[in-house]
Amino acid sequence: MAGNSFGQAFRITTAGESHGPGNVVIIDGVPAGLPLTVEDLRVDLERRRPGQSKIVTQRKEADEPEILSGVFEGRTTGTSLAILIRNTDQRSRDYSDIKDLYRPGHADYSFDAKYGFRDYRGGGRSSARETSVRVAAGVVAKKLIEQEFGGRVVAYVCQVGDVKANVESPQAVTLEQVEKRPDGEPNIVRCPDLEAADRMIELIDECRKAGDSIGGAAEIVATGIPAGLGEPVFDKIKADLAKALFSLPAVLGVEYGIGFGCVRMRGSEHNDVFTADAEQGEIRTETNRHGGMLGGITTGMPIVLRAAVKPTSSLPQEQKTVRQSGEEATIRTKGRHDPCVLPRFVPMAEAMVAIVLADHWLRWRGQCGTLTAARSNEAAGQ
Amino acid sequence: MAGNSFGQAFRITTAGESHGPGNVVIIDGVPAGLPLTVEDLRVDLERRRPGQSKIVTQRKEADEPEILSGVFEGRTTGTSLAILIRNTDQRSRDYSDIKDLYRPGHADYSFDAKYGFRDYRGGGRSSARETSVRVAAGVVAKKLIEQEFGGRVVAYVCQVGDVKANVESPQAVTLEQVEKRPDGEPNIVRCPDLEAADRMIELIDECRKAGDSIGGAAEIVATGIPAGLGEPVFDKIKADLAKALFSLPAVLGVEYGIGFGCVRMRGSEHNDVFTADAEQGEIRTETNRHGGMLGGITTGMPIVLRAAVKPTSSLPQEQKTVRQSGEEATIRTKGRHDPCVLPRFVPMAEAMVAIVLADHWLRWRGQCGTLTAARSNEAAGQ
Amino acid sequence: MAGNSFGQAFRITTAGESHGPGNVVIIDGVPAGLPLTVEDLRVDLERRRPGQSKIVTQRKEADEPEILSGVFEGRTTGTSLAILIRNTDQRSRDYSDIKDLYRPGHADYSFDAKYGFRDYRGGGRSSARETSVRVAAGVVAKKLIEQEFGGRVVAYVCQVGDVKANVESPQAVTLEQVEKRPDGEPNIVRCPDLEAADRMIELIDECRKAGDSIGGAAEIVATGIPAGLGEPVFDKIKADLAKALFSLPAVLGVEYGIGFGCVRMRGSEHNDVFTADAEQGEIRTETNRHGGMLGGITTGMPIVLRAAVKPTSSLPQEQKTVRQSGEEATIRTKGRHDPCVLPRFVPMAEAMVAIVLADHWLRWRGQCGTLTAARSNEAAGQ
Amino acid sequence: MAGNSFGQAFRITTAGESHGPGNVVIIDGVPAGLPLTVEDLRVDLERRRPGQSKIVTQRKEADEPEILSGVFEGRTTGTSLAILIRNTDQRSRDYSDIKDLYRPGHADYSFDAKYGFRDYRGGGRSSARETSVRVAAGVVAKKLIEQEFGGRVVAYVCQVGDVKANVESPQAVTLEQVEKRPDGEPNIVRCPDLEAADRMIELIDECRKAGDSIGGAAEIVATGIPAGLGEPVFDKIKADLAKALFSLPAVLGVEYGIGFGCVRMRGSEHNDVFTADAEQGEIRTETNRHGGMLGGITTGMPIVLRAAVKPTSSLPQEQKTVRQSGEEATIRTKGRHDPCVLPRFVPMAEAMVAIVLADHWLRWRGQCGTLTAARSNEAAGQ
Repeated sequence: MAGNSFGQAFRITTAGESHGPGNVVIIDGVPAGLPLTVEDLRVDLERRRPGQSKIVTQRKEADEPEILSGVFEGRTTGTSLAILIRNTDQRSRDYSDIKDLYRPGHADYSFDAKYGFRDYRGGGRSSARETSVRVAAGVVAKKLIEQEFGGRVVAYVCQVGDVKANVESPQAVTLEQVEKRPDGEPNIVRCPDLEAADRMIELIDECRKAGDSIGGAAEIVATGIPAGLGEPVFDKIKADLAKALFSLPAVLGVEYGIGFGCVRMRGSEHNDVFTADAEQGEIRTETNRHGGMLGGITTGMPIVLRAAVKPTSSLPQEQKTVRQSGEEATIRTKGRHDPCVLPRFVPMAEAMVAIVLADHWLRWRGQCGTLTAARSNEAAGQ
Repeated sequence: MAGNSFGQAFRITTAGESHGPGNVVIIDGVPAGLPLTVEDLRVDLERRRPGQSKIVTQRKEADEPEILSGVFEGRTTGTSLAILIRNTDQRSRDYSDIKDLYRPGHADYSFDAKYGFRDYRGGGRSSARETSVRVAAGVVAKKLIEQEFGGRVVAYVCQVGDVKANVESPQAVTLEQVEKRPDGEPNIVRCPDLEAADRMIELIDECRKAGDSIGGAAEIVATGIPAGLGEPVFDKIKADLAKALFSLPAVLGVEYGIGFGCVRMRGSEHNDVFTADAEQGEIRTETNRHGGMLGGITTGMPIVLRAAVKPTSSLPQEQKTVRQSGEEATIRTKGRHDPCVLPRFVPMAEAMVAIVLADHWLRWRGQCGTLTAARSNEAAGQ
Repeated sequence: MAGNSFGQAFRITTAGESHGPGNVVIIDGVPAGLPLTVEDLRVDLERRRPGQSKIVTQRKEADEPEILSGVFEGRTTGTSLAILIRNTDQRSRDYSDIKDLYRPGHADYSFDAKYGFRDYRGGGRSSARETSVRVAAGVVAKKLIEQEFGGRVVAYVCQVGDVKANVESPQAVTLEQVEKRPDGEPNIVRCPDLEAADRMIELIDECRKAGDSIGGAAEIVATGIPAGLGEPVFDKIKADLAKALFSLPAVLGVEYGIGFGCVRMRGSEHNDVFTADAEQGEIRTETNRHGGMLGGITTGMPIVLRAAVKPTSSLPQEQKTVRQSGEEATIRTKGRHDPCVLPRFVPMAEAMVAIVLADHWLRWRGQCGTLTAARSNEAAGQ
Repeated sequence: MAGNSFGQAFRITTAGESHGPGNVVIIDGVPAGLPLTVEDLRVDLERRRPGQSKIVTQRKEADEPEILSGVFEGRTTGTSLAILIRNTDQRSRDYSDIKDLYRPGHADYSFDAKYGFRDYRGGGRSSARETSVRVAAGVVAKKLIEQEFGGRVVAYVCQVGDVKANVESPQAVTLEQVEKRPDGEPNIVRCPDLEAADRMIELIDECRKAGDSIGGAAEIVATGIPAGLGEPVFDKIKADLAKALFSLPAVLGVEYGIGFGCVRMRGSEHNDVFTADAEQGEIRTETNRHGGMLGGITTGMPIVLRAAVKPTSSLPQEQKTVRQSGEEATIRTKGRHDPCVLPRFVPMAEAMVAIVLADHWLRWRGQCGTLTAARSNEAAGQ
């Protein structure tokens, strides 16, 4: 009810604030027998953590995960899996000057309106710090879908300000391309179009120097997903994926397939034509304007989503605002904020999409994995 | 788990197919004492029903609701409220020709992949027919939020194909403007910019004549919403609203506030400035690029959302496709489909948004309505 | 939140009152392909309905079910299944005399305290009438567990007042024994010990003539249940079964296996000894004091539960009470009430137990049906 | 779905095993502003912990709680509250001898059947160790109901073996009586009838010396509970309380009010008569055979429940069993187990009952706290 859980069959519940002891996630529903180590968790946490490159916030947080339960001898036990990431870089200082100031674009005012009081030392529960344990849970989800059916989720930055990446085949983009340049150097902006990547970095750097920030968009692609995942009415997989992405901080828009482009299209140019693979007899579509989902259920085609992410609200330049009392004031955020959220948004978005896919896979197993024999027999008997 | 429920405190569960006996919704969580009649339900059902104007499908469905429970002497009793809408216009005919054909853009193939067999007489559970009972539930939600805090939800068509409406102040649009033209004639396309409305009608009509369909977008605005609704992490109200809209058929994108426009903006131009109303001491923002929600929690400013709706997939012109066996085939949908979904999408979108607001209001009451006295006392004591 | 749903993977949601148009259940999560007809539903509804014998209430209710959705060509489609049972025997009369009277042992006062007003024409939502649709849902659950793994649920009356049945082997009792006597006559009290059954009938009849009612107990036995159903902590299957039975009207106590008898036992005499079936290598216990569940998870042994059911609160004799105003009054319930609830409780208890088993089976399929191959391979590799 | 969460509006999710790093609970739904310190948590944890007296297990576990989130400046913030209790007494040793042995009365076999493998170093997730964090969550629930409406929950041991306590007025028993004898010495068996307490201690000690264990029962009483909590159908408060108690290890039976005693009663002697308090106009019942709940909703009378708890399954004497392979074997549990669970069961039972009451209170606030003004006005207008 208070919204700290997500998913049904693969269900995560989180707790933690930016300036408290740490963040914790309990993952309920992980099947027994999945290999899992702390090292696995570190890979994506490293991609999300502050201080990883010059274009992200320079806060130093180790983000070292501890598995508290649910793993025995390197494999999941089927019981609830808890992961703790302690906070280590909360600089102790005097917060009395910002205690009652409402930072523009932040949840300070909303929180006060809702709860009557709040942890004013930072974003508290609304800080993006809580996404660290989402990313950890996402690693478990990614391992599950890969082991179960070879599913993969890869995200990348497709736009920053006016700089758009040119990505011809979203489903062909690899994690390696997103993370590394051909010369082995890190792809710090996580855009597979390297020419655009360079311009994005330049733009982000320019904003940083100007004491400003910049928005952008990410594309998330899931491949190897079997047809049949998702539910026909409210839990359409497009609806759950949208909720997952909108639950991330700073997301103002989500679309899939042709997305908002459909507004100007006619049905005859929009519909994807079904075809049958001559050799395998497998049914697919010639084009993928439907982004891998029809009627809210996967078709077996790649799932392609895009999310719009607003520019960071915390700015080192002076902004006008008010205090809790209504008194006018100005605020200038002291350093160490991301001039552009997108590079660190990529692993968060991957995590949430993987969690939805793991959840719907387990749901499918429960409901649709049954009576299969009966159905096959009946089909054979006809 | 199978996704036929939506909401937590105000929770709807639905059942029904296009060619079965009817559709039913159970609404769980309606507080006792809310006035409700069948006549109330009819108002929005009339706005959703087929055959209401020349630019929508010409199927004739009465959509007559029956309240099966939860209302006594004209008021809700606090127990579960069930509403039944029987199907009346399923023409009995021979379906053997389309039994194994996969209609492009429809869920036929997805359903077969998921369930192994399906009701081939129409969309079955994937038909938009199921939205009739959502609209009925939406009426209850609208009444609840209006009675509780004067909340209102109004939607309208803001784009069809290339025709964009010019709506200066979304929060000023009234239901009356959406439904009626100044001359008393019905505003059949439900666009408050009458000049644009005329061009939209023309465009839809042109598509209809060409045996084609056209996409569009709707804007949904909620006003009178108190600050503090929504949960900080997964059940951000933006996330639940997005899920609600994406759960409607044909929605390919959702955004709020400045939406995808944020991608090109800098933080300094994007942030809305907080101000305090001098007289009432109330805190608000000067602009509303944040669309009424910060940190996933309402700010008291109008909530503004937009949804992209794809062109109807059923077309009276011939389309290429395959049969279940993989064999190539063509399909031509026989008449009576909407050339543009948008005019009938408006009440559906309003219903889903109202349901989310009613749900979060009751959740707020449960969690945040408590300890208020304690908080006030404490505040007073400081 | 308002408690009109039960179960997770096999989830029922109900609505309806005693004096409204009817009762409806939506079952969400039924796998596709299960054969189901209205005739199937009638079997257990007939066992629950009023007027079936001289020892139950003489109200005449047809309890005719209508399947509104979720079944096509005689099989479930995998989408939500709705069943409607209309009320037919609400005699229209003047209720003004009982409008504000609190019937002893009933929920009239509780409802007023909770909701502020209530449907005073009968029990409203608290009437046992709502169990009709639970019984219908139970039929679907019974069919599912029988088809999936040969599971069966049989209940019977094991005590009425001081008359205790002597049932040596609960798991050997058949539905036929519960329903019919060897001479083909109906076993109207549903007790398989026929000698005790005769004395129960006599006792019930004596109470009926005295304008009184009598309590009793039922035993519910599930056989053919695979080991491994149930969850380790909160959703122990014993906990879900207890909730299911306690959710039925008039149940004041539930126990399983040796139950309250354990209070006086020592560990050395209580523990059931594990053995291995020499031929099949299957592990079982020599005795079944654990009632088929250890650690909240099934062991493969028969599940044996008992429920205590209070005497009917409505009595044709005069009882003291108060009005809503606090004014003293007397009440005498006019006719047609069950002198003993137990014979009609049997199908209700079976239904609820079957629903829990179906639910946990589908949950098991989702969580534990995965990675099995991986586990087997690993086991083989060792 | 995997059952590691309990409650809806006040919802706890737990993780942890007996031999892992620790146990953690996330409590979701705690209203903001509730005073809470680690010291508060210690009180009940001390009552639950091993080694507290000579009649419980002599394991030494500190059970030191750490609040990871959700509390700021000594008060809850309204966001999710996480509490971690690390394990400290897992003696490292060789488990190879018991790795594949099925301990009688334990969940070893059930777990293997369910998950395919298990943490064999102890009970793992089925160990009563997980109840430590339930007790911590119970403290939060107790504080909430006390602050909100003066509600209190007190439990005590009412029977051990054949020794029954004589407690005339359950609602008059105080926490002080349960914890301390008049001479200030601890009441180590937690039975308020001191004469019975002495005999219980004697019996438990006798069992301990004989290498055996003994069963018993506890009574749980909640006072100060407002009328109107609980839902009419599936979430009857009796059903949720029963589930809560049955979810605790070793509980084989639960009853409330007159409980199984109702089986032999007639309606005329069973029904409690309603009366109105002359001075306050408040409605109550003369007797409390209904245990404070009618129609599954509280009546304002004290809630009285009883739970039957089986004798500890782990015994220092030799017991027959089998290995995973089916091979026969014997097992003798090495020391440090409770000869009787009851004294430590008391705080666990209190915690679970308090959690259900806190949950239903918040649910009531959400659903029934609304429209109150409307109802009052309407009532006034009549």
